[in-house]
Amino acid sequence: MKSIIATLATLCVVSSYIPQIVKGLKTKSLRDVSLIFLIVIILGTLLWIFYGFLNQDYIFLLANSVILIFAICLTIMKIMYERKRPV
Amino acid sequence: MKSIIATLATLCVVSSYIPQIVKGLKTKSLRDVSLIFLIVIILGTLLWIFYGFLNQDYIFLLANSVILIFAICLTIMKIMYERKRPV
Repeated sequence: MKSIIATLATLCVVSSYIPQIVKGLKTKSLRDVSLIFLIVIILGTLLWIFYGFLNQDYIFLLANSVILIFAICLTIMKIMYERKRPV
Repeated sequence: MKSIIATLATLCVVSSYIPQIVKGLKTKSLRDVSLIFLIVIILGTLLWIFYGFLNQDYIFLLANSVILIFAICLTIMKIMYERKRPV
């Protein structure tokens, strides 16, 4: 029971970034998404990855690695879109 | 060591929503933030809260409750700002 809830919760949190990336790719704008939010999420997931490594919890490590990749993608997209924006 | 990393990681993930809320309040726009992202985050944190409750892990439950409140705030702000936007 607990592991099902944990799996579903992890799937939700990991997959939540997909619609954000899709929206960003469609609108070519992530102006309203805070860069600090993304950087702090990256920092947090890096710490969780290290925690998963120390605990040898590789599922946890994998889930956070996927979030890290998504957050890095969003950060790169945001920076790229901001640069292209006319002043 | 592990608990310090877990605490720091939790603090990062929880606090990451603050700059996003501040940005939203300043710009009065969350158009680029995906509503599906917010809803799935809310669903995920609700599941984590339930998991924390089952495990009697009240720190974990509290951290996810704060994320839940932040995500609900962002969702309400987004809906309000979208309604006010001229067509």
